[in-house]
Amino acid sequence: MTSNGIDNAIQCHNPHLAKNGDDHLYHFGISRATTDIPKVFGDVKFVCTGGCASRLAMYAKLFSAESKIPLSENLSKSDRFCMYKTGPVLWVNHGMGAPSLSIMLVETIKLLHYAGATDVAYIRLGTSGGIGVAPGTVVVSSGAINGELLEAHVQYIMGKRVERPAKLDQGLKDELLKTGKELDIPVDTGLTLCADDFYEGQSRLDGAFCDYTVDEKFTFLHKLYNEYNVRNFEMESSCFAAMISRANAKAAIVCVALLNRFDGDQVKVPKEQYLEFETRPYRLVAAFIRERI
Amino acid sequence: MTSNGIDNAIQCHNPHLAKNGDDHLYHFGISRATTDIPKVFGDVKFVCTGGCASRLAMYAKLFSAESKIPLSENLSKSDRFCMYKTGPVLWVNHGMGAPSLSIMLVETIKLLHYAGATDVAYIRLGTSGGIGVAPGTVVVSSGAINGELLEAHVQYIMGKRVERPAKLDQGLKDELLKTGKELDIPVDTGLTLCADDFYEGQSRLDGAFCDYTVDEKFTFLHKLYNEYNVRNFEMESSCFAAMISRANAKAAIVCVALLNRFDGDQVKVPKEQYLEFETRPYRLVAAFIRERI
Repeated sequence: MTSNGIDNAIQCHNPHLAKNGDDHLYHFGISRATTDIPKVFGDVKFVCTGGCASRLAMYAKLFSAESKIPLSENLSKSDRFCMYKTGPVLWVNHGMGAPSLSIMLVETIKLLHYAGATDVAYIRLGTSGGIGVAPGTVVVSSGAINGELLEAHVQYIMGKRVERPAKLDQGLKDELLKTGKELDIPVDTGLTLCADDFYEGQSRLDGAFCDYTVDEKFTFLHKLYNEYNVRNFEMESSCFAAMISRANAKAAIVCVALLNRFDGDQVKVPKEQYLEFETRPYRLVAAFIRERI
Repeated sequence: MTSNGIDNAIQCHNPHLAKNGDDHLYHFGISRATTDIPKVFGDVKFVCTGGCASRLAMYAKLFSAESKIPLSENLSKSDRFCMYKTGPVLWVNHGMGAPSLSIMLVETIKLLHYAGATDVAYIRLGTSGGIGVAPGTVVVSSGAINGELLEAHVQYIMGKRVERPAKLDQGLKDELLKTGKELDIPVDTGLTLCADDFYEGQSRLDGAFCDYTVDEKFTFLHKLYNEYNVRNFEMESSCFAAMISRANAKAAIVCVALLNRFDGDQVKVPKEQYLEFETRPYRLVAAFIRERI
């Protein structure tokens, strides 16, 4: 194992890593040989992430200005992802969907492992489709299920199916919910369904393809709400929960619902309200972090 | 069905679509109500796509300059994807992995369906990890298999597994190979394995996590090469093949191999050579398209 031997350190579970001197984190363009990773990243305690590069850059700038902490340049030397640093907080985007996210996670886990970072929490700040929650509600996920309705992330390794348990940190979830309530941001909690697409995987009626009826859609949404306690759809949660817990870090997911899927499929929020909704996960998470750094 | 009733038209298979007047293509910020879609997109014959927004923008600019065809502004009003148009050729990025790609495909299929576009070919220009091919080789895929080694794209719809056949257009593949040979670009053909991650899903030894041995890795790579005729790994092919054939359009995949996975896992191509490799799929596809428009 290449664990640092410290209980609360980020851990890699790969015996081959120790044999390699250098390591090039390809999708960030960062190498051990050319960057003093412990010096630059050793103090990281929070990794804030979300889909869009431009949104994450905006969050990083806002946090820097509000918290009077200097903002780094873009530390990613590849155009696959962006990466900004404000003191102990890293701001990284992950693109859309679990495969894109998994690349970001593997490479930041290795980065923070090489850095010797300890007590790290990853927080995903996203947008989502609400199920039985009003538009604008911020859902702090209690757990994540995949498209098979399993609390797991499924990988195919050498042609074989491997299931990884997808668990989020319950203490972090409770504290984030508390912060949301204190800020008077509408919050809710429940499971999040991680779909592998935006349309058929989320039983939308407005994709290019649809083989199911309106009744079947609503039956499924009600089953998710009533039997599974699901409160929103997005496209990363089960992979996020599984990979981060495997690395011995804490994971939390804070997504604003842009619509209530009981009322429709299309995102029709007016631009100004959209922008305000989009800042809610940020306001919640930024306040939470500021109290702890 | 909302087919246009024309044999060679892009088809949507969704009876609900016809009931909606407007349609907002959320991840492009394009609406039927505010854009004259048939006027702007009705002439599209080729959709060129790949992961990176900046790379696709560069390809579009190059094609415009070389072909003396005006370049549109970025037609995407969302920062999720970019979209440029040069006459009958659309240039769109798709991010990394099948879920991100699937969103781009659903929304461009709807767009081109509303536009009444006919005889459309989608061509993916990408980078990949070669299996038994020299770095710099351009692999024109003969087909695509998923992580389960099935020639299929698997979706979970309402909790149920659905398999879609993943077939690429063989005529288009043969013509692209011919163009490559004429241009003296090193080309090869074979199946492409669509993995859901860059590390464990591609049996790399340099991820954050690895439970397999060096021997197991090479046994798997040799099995892919010898028994399955696989020539490269990437992260989109089976979804790409399945969705585009379902929409009655042709699909081809043209990816340069950045390394030969029999020789290592890390992408260590020097910057200048990387940039030259990256232009090879473009040079091939641009020459192919120019002869046909």
